[in-house]
Amino acid sequence: MNYSIIRYILFRVLEFAALFLTLPCLVAAIYQEKAGFAFAAVMLGSLIVAEIGKLWKPKSNVFFAREGFVTVSLSWILLSFVGALPFWLSGEIPNFVDALYETISGFTTTGGSILSDVECLSKSVQFWRLFTHWIGGMGVLVLIIAVLPLSGGYNMHLMRAESPGPSVGKLVPRVQATAKILYGIYIGITLLEMICLKAAGMTVYDSIVLSFSTMGTGGFGVLNSSIGSYSVVVQVIFIIFMILGGMNFNVYYLLLVARKPKEALKHEEARTYLLLLLGAALLITWNIRGYYESIGIAFKDALFQVASLGSSTGFATADFDLWPEFSKAILFVIMIIGACAGSTGGGFKVSRVMILIQDAKNELLRVVHPQIVKKPHLEGRAVEDGTVRSVHAYLMIYLAVFFVSFLFLSLDKYDFTTNITAVMANLNNTGPGLNGVGPTCNYGEYSVFSKFVLMFDMLTGRLELLPMLILFSPKTWKKY
Amino acid sequence: MNYSIIRYILFRVLEFAALFLTLPCLVAAIYQEKAGFAFAAVMLGSLIVAEIGKLWKPKSNVFFAREGFVTVSLSWILLSFVGALPFWLSGEIPNFVDALYETISGFTTTGGSILSDVECLSKSVQFWRLFTHWIGGMGVLVLIIAVLPLSGGYNMHLMRAESPGPSVGKLVPRVQATAKILYGIYIGITLLEMICLKAAGMTVYDSIVLSFSTMGTGGFGVLNSSIGSYSVVVQVIFIIFMILGGMNFNVYYLLLVARKPKEALKHEEARTYLLLLLGAALLITWNIRGYYESIGIAFKDALFQVASLGSSTGFATADFDLWPEFSKAILFVIMIIGACAGSTGGGFKVSRVMILIQDAKNELLRVVHPQIVKKPHLEGRAVEDGTVRSVHAYLMIYLAVFFVSFLFLSLDKYDFTTNITAVMANLNNTGPGLNGVGPTCNYGEYSVFSKFVLMFDMLTGRLELLPMLILFSPKTWKKY
Repeated sequence: MNYSIIRYILFRVLEFAALFLTLPCLVAAIYQEKAGFAFAAVMLGSLIVAEIGKLWKPKSNVFFAREGFVTVSLSWILLSFVGALPFWLSGEIPNFVDALYETISGFTTTGGSILSDVECLSKSVQFWRLFTHWIGGMGVLVLIIAVLPLSGGYNMHLMRAESPGPSVGKLVPRVQATAKILYGIYIGITLLEMICLKAAGMTVYDSIVLSFSTMGTGGFGVLNSSIGSYSVVVQVIFIIFMILGGMNFNVYYLLLVARKPKEALKHEEARTYLLLLLGAALLITWNIRGYYESIGIAFKDALFQVASLGSSTGFATADFDLWPEFSKAILFVIMIIGACAGSTGGGFKVSRVMILIQDAKNELLRVVHPQIVKKPHLEGRAVEDGTVRSVHAYLMIYLAVFFVSFLFLSLDKYDFTTNITAVMANLNNTGPGLNGVGPTCNYGEYSVFSKFVLMFDMLTGRLELLPMLILFSPKTWKKY
Repeated sequence: MNYSIIRYILFRVLEFAALFLTLPCLVAAIYQEKAGFAFAAVMLGSLIVAEIGKLWKPKSNVFFAREGFVTVSLSWILLSFVGALPFWLSGEIPNFVDALYETISGFTTTGGSILSDVECLSKSVQFWRLFTHWIGGMGVLVLIIAVLPLSGGYNMHLMRAESPGPSVGKLVPRVQATAKILYGIYIGITLLEMICLKAAGMTVYDSIVLSFSTMGTGGFGVLNSSIGSYSVVVQVIFIIFMILGGMNFNVYYLLLVARKPKEALKHEEARTYLLLLLGAALLITWNIRGYYESIGIAFKDALFQVASLGSSTGFATADFDLWPEFSKAILFVIMIIGACAGSTGGGFKVSRVMILIQDAKNELLRVVHPQIVKKPHLEGRAVEDGTVRSVHAYLMIYLAVFFVSFLFLSLDKYDFTTNITAVMANLNNTGPGLNGVGPTCNYGEYSVFSKFVLMFDMLTGRLELLPMLILFSPKTWKKY
């Protein structure tokens, strides 16, 4: 293991953390808030440590997948600790474990909160809370790759470890160019949402921070009622941008950069994702029609909740915990399937499900017609055997993390439904679950131990299992 | 598809159904019960149809995996319909759908009931109810293979389709000899349990029928309190034989027939199964210690419930639905993992979990040390790639069946916990779940639609997914 390069990159991550923290400092200055001192202190502290640490150059440039995974998981843990400090120092989240939970929930774009009242937070703390979603959505290392002249093997291994999806989505041959394009698209769509929200009558501040939260598919809001008290127009804007956040960014690349609209429209994962959301929304509309005055409003609320849980955002306009079981069950399944690979969203990912279903069908076919050899196909190409195998392993690891976390959470005071949906909502980076962690509740009353389990789940889910598990596996640190 | 041979085997299955039905006729004669007429009528009807149908000889002996799967699934459906008739005709289960549910629950060794009062049943109906567990435990086609002079390709394909486990457990090169050994061991252990129960003070009738239920890992009882009102000695006998029923029968073969006790003791799946049950029982004992006067009684009840759900039997001595969440969560996980391959038990099977966990670990290792190539090992041998692949497909199909069934069940009146555990308890052939389908409740109040979903799950679970899905897949009936 090349420790020196990992250390070097971690100091660069710290440098970026300082950079990010200048924004809430600015917000605090504008609104004249005391919390600004906390942000400034953490920002300056990080900057000093990072600049001194950076002088300590790496001894070697050897960088393999192993270093990539370890660097990414340590970067996220570091970022979470640093990011939690201002919440704690400002006194707005007085308990450090809670502050850490909130920060990890932010960076991993989960959006589950330990706060029961978010309206009492200062503007700068609120800003930081929602901005973490935006940073985590596309990933901090992808940003570092995009803007720093790092070269050599790192880029690919870091990108692979941080980006979601069963295979690495290089848009163009150079990794750095890919990272630049991704961030370019990300910034563009975020700006577009800000403009739309402002045009729909929202304040500048709200439209900025809520756009961060939407496009990162996070789910933190600025009101205790989440999105329910906004106008229908605003809600529809949110529906559109939540869905866009959970979309495979390859589609935007094809549409906006490569200018191949036909290929973009044929994108199989994106089409499946949209069809799934639409199908789920229609089924729920039918199921909840009796709860609403008009079928139109029922459809709007159904689509909102489906888009929110399917893209792993976690906003709510209705307390879906009060909906009939069938609707809740659909939301549960949609939440697990999650968003597209190569998006800012979480979940198991639509393309993984597509690969697994095709493979299972082929297995059934192979049993009855052994002479037929078929492979799963995605985007017009046969999926490589290695990818199929790793998707299978992914499923098993996912289930193992789920069951172990569920057992640990059962030691706490909540019931079966709450515990199952809490693990799923954190592992899939969604946010709200059912019962005790439904859309009107929060994670504040779980014990410290349970919170650490959920924090592990959020990080494991956001980094797609391997990095966190590799970090904690003794074999990673062993020489062969 | 060779329809004529499938038809021929189905008539032979019907012949065996008639044979099985002579036993409850005998019981009815002894106890002078009216229900005997129902049994006699169905028995005679089946026999006549079977003997006439058998004259219609198959045109060809072509028999492949496809024919094997279709034959097995159709046999089980036929057997269930015929088996349900006496319940219905005798008037003791007046609703035919309920009678069918009860019969499928019997043959698949699930043990979930639609009856709230089992003590009012006549002796012969009770006998048939518990005897179906015993027939289904080892499988009717395995029995046919064992006693009929069928030869050619059928035996292997039928055995493969009916026997549980990731790879086919041929004990000896000849399939018929394997089937004979399996039934020999099965009969032997069942007789041993009858003797033990009789010696512990039970009536002859109860010790016979409850031994059928235990060794088939079924779970139907003769008292409304399941096993709770029997003496501690009787409960311990049940614990032992439930565990024996869920054990891989290879172990008994090694121990009793091949006389290789060392190999038997080294059997990895059996050891993992026993360790899992012991570990789960100890954790639950610690968790429920406050509910009991002495730690010994707590351990006895914990071990009973663990052995019951782990072996997929489903007997209960305590209402574990009232236990703390952690204990319920452990029971839930133990129920899903289930028994050993090559046993009469259900669940996902210990060896499948072992293969998947090893494969997931290898995948993690492969990422950090790409030069290392490792395969899952079981019983001292590397697991073949084809087997690993089919276990992966099995997991995906299992999850797909689970999620679809769960969505369907959510249309009914029960809550999230009830629906999830109901699907799991039926798909894993266990019996009781939590909440609305806890050990003191039953499946009688689910709608007819839900009952059909659960019947499909029981059959799919018992036949290990492929046969039932292949039966309903249009591609099976298509020529290539």
